[in-house]
Amino acid sequence: MTKVAAAYFSGSGTTSTTAASVIEGVVAAGAEILDARIIGEDIIEDQRQSDQLATRLDERDAIIFGTPTFIGSVSGQLKTFFDAMAPRWFTQKWRNKVAVGFTASSLAAGDKAGAFTAISAFVMQMDMIWVGTGAGFQENMNTNGFYLGLAQLLQPRSS
Amino acid sequence: MTKVAAAYFSGSGTTSTTAASVIEGVVAAGAEILDARIIGEDIIEDQRQSDQLATRLDERDAIIFGTPTFIGSVSGQLKTFFDAMAPRWFTQKWRNKVAVGFTASSLAAGDKAGAFTAISAFVMQMDMIWVGTGAGFQENMNTNGFYLGLAQLLQPRSS
Amino acid sequence: MTKVAAAYFSGSGTTSTTAASVIEGVVAAGAEILDARIIGEDIIEDQRQSDQLATRLDERDAIIFGTPTFIGSVSGQLKTFFDAMAPRWFTQKWRNKVAVGFTASSLAAGDKAGAFTAISAFVMQMDMIWVGTGAGFQENMNTNGFYLGLAQLLQPRSS
Amino acid sequence: MTKVAAAYFSGSGTTSTTAASVIEGVVAAGAEILDARIIGEDIIEDQRQSDQLATRLDERDAIIFGTPTFIGSVSGQLKTFFDAMAPRWFTQKWRNKVAVGFTASSLAAGDKAGAFTAISAFVMQMDMIWVGTGAGFQENMNTNGFYLGLAQLLQPRSS
Repeated sequence: MTKVAAAYFSGSGTTSTTAASVIEGVVAAGAEILDARIIGEDIIEDQRQSDQLATRLDERDAIIFGTPTFIGSVSGQLKTFFDAMAPRWFTQKWRNKVAVGFTASSLAAGDKAGAFTAISAFVMQMDMIWVGTGAGFQENMNTNGFYLGLAQLLQPRSS
Repeated sequence: MTKVAAAYFSGSGTTSTTAASVIEGVVAAGAEILDARIIGEDIIEDQRQSDQLATRLDERDAIIFGTPTFIGSVSGQLKTFFDAMAPRWFTQKWRNKVAVGFTASSLAAGDKAGAFTAISAFVMQMDMIWVGTGAGFQENMNTNGFYLGLAQLLQPRSS
Repeated sequence: MTKVAAAYFSGSGTTSTTAASVIEGVVAAGAEILDARIIGEDIIEDQRQSDQLATRLDERDAIIFGTPTFIGSVSGQLKTFFDAMAPRWFTQKWRNKVAVGFTASSLAAGDKAGAFTAISAFVMQMDMIWVGTGAGFQENMNTNGFYLGLAQLLQPRSS
Repeated sequence: MTKVAAAYFSGSGTTSTTAASVIEGVVAAGAEILDARIIGEDIIEDQRQSDQLATRLDERDAIIFGTPTFIGSVSGQLKTFFDAMAPRWFTQKWRNKVAVGFTASSLAAGDKAGAFTAISAFVMQMDMIWVGTGAGFQENMNTNGFYLGLAQLLQPRSS
């Protein structure tokens, strides 16, 4: 059975709602899932918290990274977690794990691309294998047109 | 009087509609505008066409670059025009000109970010000064949330 | 036997030298390789040339995309080939093929990142699976520190 | 007299060495400089620290952002500072300030591009005006070929 983890930070809780849907989808697809939510305060104040979380990710076949988009990139909390993975970067410990990403923000568009840029840069440095969303025409999915990962609009916008 | 040029490629004509609005806005702001539409076939088949167009841009204070977003970046036609600017890159001839960008595509979101990435890379290599759109909250503008340039949705999407 | 193709544009011929090394490596790894060099003039003047090349790529398991870096992104020729793949984007015909990239330029650094950005955007839109280079510490490889793909320095630079 | 600030995070101290050179250059050019080093622990543990720092930046004409490149993007500390600027994003308080960036990392190349991507995304969201480095041919500068900002190699690399 494929072992997947969802490693994500959620601020107000909206990203965690998206994470719940993602987790449900992974389970429905027959894989085992680890819910590895990143608590910002823990990660930042105590390097050991990052290490403990990372140890649980070491044995996974695939990791789903999630974050709100803050001002054109990933949240400071997820970035701080990424930075704490430097020892695993040096040994390329996560080589060949599959990686996907998701993000959420309040506008439909482009600022979310910056979050995917940062996640995919990390993924490439770790020598993981990046899988995007595809166009999803047949399934009437991905109507906003993001391809690097799953992009969630936080709330409908009247314009 | 500030001298501006709009240098853009338009495939089906939708980008040229956006260009017309942009040109109208520049004129309303009291600047002089040069409509420097790039004809793809000319540019690509004959390097002298690019040179002639570029000569007209040399004397401008600011250049607006426009393109449809094709498959996650600028059109091949605009990129071919950029490539033909290599001699001006070498002399940094356009240093300190102001640059802005616009693009159009059929989906609301993220694929257009890649077009801005390519335009801004060119602009930085030319040592021009990049100006984005800003958030536009006060004016109820930029509701899709692009900041590097003006992003136009080609047609409403039923979903 | 895994079937791979190298689809690349080379201007002065330096990129084709890199391509030759890449092809040699693929063969040494036991895979079958198709040398699908893109001739810029053919691609651009005649859409059918792109179609014929693409048909040969349809049956491949993996595609290696290569280009010189021109002014911060892929060459206009490779971008024009990408644009011509729009029908295959619409049907997601290349879904789940593996993709890697390589590029070459005369400076050690950052401008090559823009070429990988454009290639990976295309790859994600096609729903292919992107594989980077990894850090390569053990093998004393990738000393310039590119992770999205193989980055080749065209000539040593005295500074 | 033009008022400039250098707002940067430095981990081991190497980035602060680069910052010292940058500050020296600004002073030599006849501008007034504010050395606004970001202390990671302060920023992250106490939002008021970010607010106090930002208040000092409010009255500046130009801001220089600096960071080490950590695993393909800005440091978590600088990103956390950016995130804390959300109120100023909402009011576009820094509109029309000039912005430049610098970064340092141990490899010559591409991973530093990701740091500039994140800084420039922030700058565009704040509606600031982005100025890069230019090619610097005449001055035998920028030999590594970064254009979005100043890229510093931490230590020579034997290869």
